[in-house]
Amino acid sequence: MDHFFTVKTVDEVLGLVADFPVLPAETVSLARASGRVLAEDVLAGEDVPQFDRSTMDGYAVRARDTFGANESLPALFTVVGEIVMGREPSCEVGPGRTALIWTGGMMPPGANAVVPVEYARRVDESTVELARPVAPYEYVIRRGEDVRRGDMLLPKGRRLRPQDMGLLAALGRESLLATRRPRVAVISTGNEVVPVGSEPGPGQVRDVNTYTLGALVELFGAESVSLGLVRDEPDDIHSAVSQAMQTADVVAISGGSSVGVRDYTVEVFRGFEGSKILVHGVSVSPGKPTIMARVGDKSLWGLPGHTVSAMITADLFLRPLLLRLSGESESRPVWGRTVRAVMSRNVPSVHGRQDYIRVRIEAGPDSGLTAHPVLGKSGLISTMVRADGLVCIPLNDEGMPKGAEVEVRLFD
Amino acid sequence: MDHFFTVKTVDEVLGLVADFPVLPAETVSLARASGRVLAEDVLAGEDVPQFDRSTMDGYAVRARDTFGANESLPALFTVVGEIVMGREPSCEVGPGRTALIWTGGMMPPGANAVVPVEYARRVDESTVELARPVAPYEYVIRRGEDVRRGDMLLPKGRRLRPQDMGLLAALGRESLLATRRPRVAVISTGNEVVPVGSEPGPGQVRDVNTYTLGALVELFGAESVSLGLVRDEPDDIHSAVSQAMQTADVVAISGGSSVGVRDYTVEVFRGFEGSKILVHGVSVSPGKPTIMARVGDKSLWGLPGHTVSAMITADLFLRPLLLRLSGESESRPVWGRTVRAVMSRNVPSVHGRQDYIRVRIEAGPDSGLTAHPVLGKSGLISTMVRADGLVCIPLNDEGMPKGAEVEVRLFD
Repeated sequence: MDHFFTVKTVDEVLGLVADFPVLPAETVSLARASGRVLAEDVLAGEDVPQFDRSTMDGYAVRARDTFGANESLPALFTVVGEIVMGREPSCEVGPGRTALIWTGGMMPPGANAVVPVEYARRVDESTVELARPVAPYEYVIRRGEDVRRGDMLLPKGRRLRPQDMGLLAALGRESLLATRRPRVAVISTGNEVVPVGSEPGPGQVRDVNTYTLGALVELFGAESVSLGLVRDEPDDIHSAVSQAMQTADVVAISGGSSVGVRDYTVEVFRGFEGSKILVHGVSVSPGKPTIMARVGDKSLWGLPGHTVSAMITADLFLRPLLLRLSGESESRPVWGRTVRAVMSRNVPSVHGRQDYIRVRIEAGPDSGLTAHPVLGKSGLISTMVRADGLVCIPLNDEGMPKGAEVEVRLFD
Repeated sequence: MDHFFTVKTVDEVLGLVADFPVLPAETVSLARASGRVLAEDVLAGEDVPQFDRSTMDGYAVRARDTFGANESLPALFTVVGEIVMGREPSCEVGPGRTALIWTGGMMPPGANAVVPVEYARRVDESTVELARPVAPYEYVIRRGEDVRRGDMLLPKGRRLRPQDMGLLAALGRESLLATRRPRVAVISTGNEVVPVGSEPGPGQVRDVNTYTLGALVELFGAESVSLGLVRDEPDDIHSAVSQAMQTADVVAISGGSSVGVRDYTVEVFRGFEGSKILVHGVSVSPGKPTIMARVGDKSLWGLPGHTVSAMITADLFLRPLLLRLSGESESRPVWGRTVRAVMSRNVPSVHGRQDYIRVRIEAGPDSGLTAHPVLGKSGLISTMVRADGLVCIPLNDEGMPKGAEVEVRLFD
């Protein structure tokens, strides 16, 4: 009867989640690395760029030769050549001399600034007037200005964004070490549940959770593997979970919200060698009948069958678990996932339980946001479709009054 | 010399972008539809659920028979059967009678409420005491309570979220009409640019934009096709663009920021039959040398070569273009992509130009956010790596003072 001791708070479950080890690293080619999580610190092996570059089309000069030049008294320069893109300059820029250069071109020896072409008037083949002064290194990106050799650039645990991809490209990193993507096996149960392609008979409903959970898990950056529908029988569930555990890091069964079914899901989970039932009920609503067992480094989850509860518990527990397994150290900052809004009505809650309220957000005329509770039983998928996010009512509050400012966690 | 007439403001370019037609629809299986944009209105073809269901394990009763029951004076019921999941009930519930029912089970004829099992004490095989009253339809999801036949559920133009997938599953939609994903061909040019796998010689740099733009385009929900590096020669660019136009809806060339190269990119774009140069320069910084031509329903973009400018113009123009081509009517609401923050220092700007300032966001002790400008030339990819988002300084402002409250558009 260990389940009396395993009813947990949300924070306790999150603590258990944080205990799983990060998945092993694998080599990934740069072309496929976007969105993956770095399993190595990336240091700069070289300076970027490796030479001083012009940032403008213009004339490469010694800055001091331009001092005092202006529209009415331009400085006269002798043109000693033109820089060819992607080549080492063949000319040198001495006093009173200049070379034509293009954006991105390599600065010739002797020159330390560029006068943009708009300020130049070519007098003849070998002479140009430059009509403004430039400071040393004006319109020049210096060697190592973007990246200096030895700099720590991207820490282990960073989920790669487009700009991070660009930086890796600049460094010539054709491949890198990334954490393996977590694999989640999604299983739906319920003897009343039929596949989407079926016409439900009396008492039957179509399988919803395979689709919501599969899509959620992919949004969380993991691979989802659907094992489809399994009958609510211990043997069937045992064999589906056994099969799932061969390849998956996480097994998520939804359904079987009945007391009896929950009990044998626990028994199935307990039956695996080395299994520990760590969660058997959570003080959260919706989501109370959540179960979690740990078998080695794998976790087996029994999520509620009610579709809203299954989605909310996946967001609450699977999302942080998958970020943890991915080794993501700075998960997407909370300020990108939440907004502040004002409650449009009172919502009661039960003391001693963390409540998640579905809300629809509406922008007011004063640019403030209003959160309208979307009420409805946790079996109603349409309530999630109408909602934009969730408001949490803390464990020891007894509700949220109309007009309260709340933080809304937006759906991914 | 039409380019004197084609320098546009950001809003003008966005107006041109909004003029492209939505891509055609295609049939997509539900299993692959997450994140796709609906090309049809989804109406409910049937009620969901199609029968009254219990939301609890308990006893199905006529509600009125429980009125007055409580812990000290429970009501006595005769148990006439147990509901089998997924089957039509074989029993009927008359006055003083009840049937055992499980979560999700079909309510038997005669019953209109469920007393949860916690309030039941089984006296013997055929008798149970129920110790609380229930109102009609308490703990019951009624037929059509989730979705009523004929309801408009998901409008054309909705990008499908996990819960929308669930709703489609509940309705038995194995496939649906979605807008075809836009295809974007990404081309990098520059005679000084070498592939990532190469060791750059003097004056050479590695190709960054192929990776940043490819990853961005995918984040925007499109398919990216990399055509790799092309030399800055009109013939080479012409043949790359011709090839790209065979399959892509959008061609994005970056590089060639030099005046001369820009000019012949325009000439190449102009050379396609029916081509119109709609943008030749934008009053925005960074991003001024942006070019756009329209050829039928395809658009050809010349993005700046500087990597920061290329990313910002892609965010400014390609993102809304791709949402437009996808037919997304309610693009991800802006309140999920922006946060308010306070500028940590003055940033000057030029009147008559829309400036985008890279900023790093820091959470303050008072839960307010501070936006720190990340200064640096637009050729420095490392500035984008350090930044979290952009602050826009409007066309006719001359800067943003320290302490100003600004809206930060977060990077995707």
